[in-house]
Amino acid sequence: MVKAKSWILAKHFDGPPKNTDFKLLEEELPKPKDGEVLLEAVFLSVDPYMRPFSVLYMKEGDVMIGTQVAKVIQSQNPAFPVGSYVVSNCGWRTHTVCNGKDLIPIISGWPQDVSLSLALGSIGMPGLTAVYGIEEVLGLQKGETLLVNAAAGAVGSVVGQIAKIKGCKVVGSAGSDAKVAYLKDLGFDEAFNYKTVSSLEEALRKASPDGYDCFFENVGGLFSTVALQQMKNFGRIAVCGGISTYNDGTHQTGPYPLVTINWKQLKIEGFMQSRWEHKHTESLHRLMAWLKEGKLQCREHITEGFENMPAAFMGMLQGENIGKAIVAV
Amino acid sequence: MVKAKSWILAKHFDGPPKNTDFKLLEEELPKPKDGEVLLEAVFLSVDPYMRPFSVLYMKEGDVMIGTQVAKVIQSQNPAFPVGSYVVSNCGWRTHTVCNGKDLIPIISGWPQDVSLSLALGSIGMPGLTAVYGIEEVLGLQKGETLLVNAAAGAVGSVVGQIAKIKGCKVVGSAGSDAKVAYLKDLGFDEAFNYKTVSSLEEALRKASPDGYDCFFENVGGLFSTVALQQMKNFGRIAVCGGISTYNDGTHQTGPYPLVTINWKQLKIEGFMQSRWEHKHTESLHRLMAWLKEGKLQCREHITEGFENMPAAFMGMLQGENIGKAIVAV
Repeated sequence: MVKAKSWILAKHFDGPPKNTDFKLLEEELPKPKDGEVLLEAVFLSVDPYMRPFSVLYMKEGDVMIGTQVAKVIQSQNPAFPVGSYVVSNCGWRTHTVCNGKDLIPIISGWPQDVSLSLALGSIGMPGLTAVYGIEEVLGLQKGETLLVNAAAGAVGSVVGQIAKIKGCKVVGSAGSDAKVAYLKDLGFDEAFNYKTVSSLEEALRKASPDGYDCFFENVGGLFSTVALQQMKNFGRIAVCGGISTYNDGTHQTGPYPLVTINWKQLKIEGFMQSRWEHKHTESLHRLMAWLKEGKLQCREHITEGFENMPAAFMGMLQGENIGKAIVAV
Repeated sequence: MVKAKSWILAKHFDGPPKNTDFKLLEEELPKPKDGEVLLEAVFLSVDPYMRPFSVLYMKEGDVMIGTQVAKVIQSQNPAFPVGSYVVSNCGWRTHTVCNGKDLIPIISGWPQDVSLSLALGSIGMPGLTAVYGIEEVLGLQKGETLLVNAAAGAVGSVVGQIAKIKGCKVVGSAGSDAKVAYLKDLGFDEAFNYKTVSSLEEALRKASPDGYDCFFENVGGLFSTVALQQMKNFGRIAVCGGISTYNDGTHQTGPYPLVTINWKQLKIEGFMQSRWEHKHTESLHRLMAWLKEGKLQCREHITEGFENMPAAFMGMLQGENIGKAIVAV
């Protein structure tokens, strides 16, 4: 028998999540039955999507949704031997008994010197999101100019680096000078701190006077409003998220800027990486190859301790992290 | 020498256009020189796009933009003999001297018993807009459900009929009971008066409980906000216009409903028919074929007299027309 801890949504978030919205549960888990395994979390992910997900799909008392890298510590399933590592969508839990159905093995050939935590970041869901947003949604072409916001985050930092690999001009926006310095390190052509520029419109125009072919949207709100006006005709926008809007009491419901969309003939598309699941393995290998070639830098913001998951989540929503926010158990 | 009248934008519109924003000019035109023709307007078009166009591209004193069917009454250009008819983008003018460069001949084989005014409507720009919105932007497939608003208008009425030709379920919204009756006549599966339904959300849900695959957007504002929530996952929206927003003092600039766009993975695309100019001739012949086969009904709302152009324009913006708004000189 194993003692498992899990974080549940005790109370639906009202504005920014706070400590009292979470509750830590302890329970004893049974031994795995035939076909089952017992997982022990090693790294857990906190991601922006968890905030709107809670509104759309969770009820109070549910375990917080989330992905983890876990070690198989007991196994009655030959596909997942003891000691192997998997990616699991089992939520904010230290230990989980599950059948192997939804477990994703770590991709083959994972180098010894690369932290498995990256399977939650640049070589995982956020990395895939960047790849599909750029390739499937935007269809970004060599020589084009791409704008990405929340650019120092888990997704944005990969987006900018892939766009550079593809021979594009990349402009990034982030919320601190340290993040801006990081973006410059990553090779972004232009980067600015949206919190300190005197005019967002001016900053966007200065960074690319001709406007933007593509916009990878992670933020929403005022940023979107201003950025939309800076798009070139036939500009494409990939809506990956809207972190500035997630704590709003009522979700923003428009009205959207029809005249601009119409007259500039813009294309705006929301997406989630799960749409291209059939390409995941190939895409993860491609991301890993870029990492090995030194073309993809993967910074992480690691919080120690399962008990600090709510703090890590709240900090990430407030922009405390540079790179991927990870909790190490 | 010919006396020409033209309507100019005397004052930029502030809210709904009013009589004093327009001014009628008279001038004497010179005889056409080599390569030129003298046109006499027969039918003129008033269209919603003229309202935002004036804000974006016109200055006070400019002739109002617009398309007309004109007769060549003098010609120094063998391509356009006296007595022939053309479509011209020369604006709100009774007579115009121009070279033949931007003149569009009426398509070949135009039947004697079909009014040439349709070259400004169902067999012209609005018809092309419907075709390209459905085929190029939405990629509407047989069996899908399409929502169109301003459905009794010049574009919307063609949109609904083409969608029926393609084997789709069509839901239309319009602003009077007479318009709703017209939509039913046209074969719309469902139609409602958005001004009298107790709840727009309920009306949309009742008309298609499973939601909408495609939405042909002509209106904007509150309608968009509500309709977006009724889209199916992977729904497509063609942004053709936003007539409810055109008189707004400041253009609506968002914020747009990111969470819905993101999680439903919606695709929203603004477009103008001019993007597919290379397909115009083939598309116009296709529209004419549907008309001849009785699959496309073309209703017009005709105002007599060039002096009534402002009234026709203002009435159209207020939704007075069923079908295409036309001014007959």
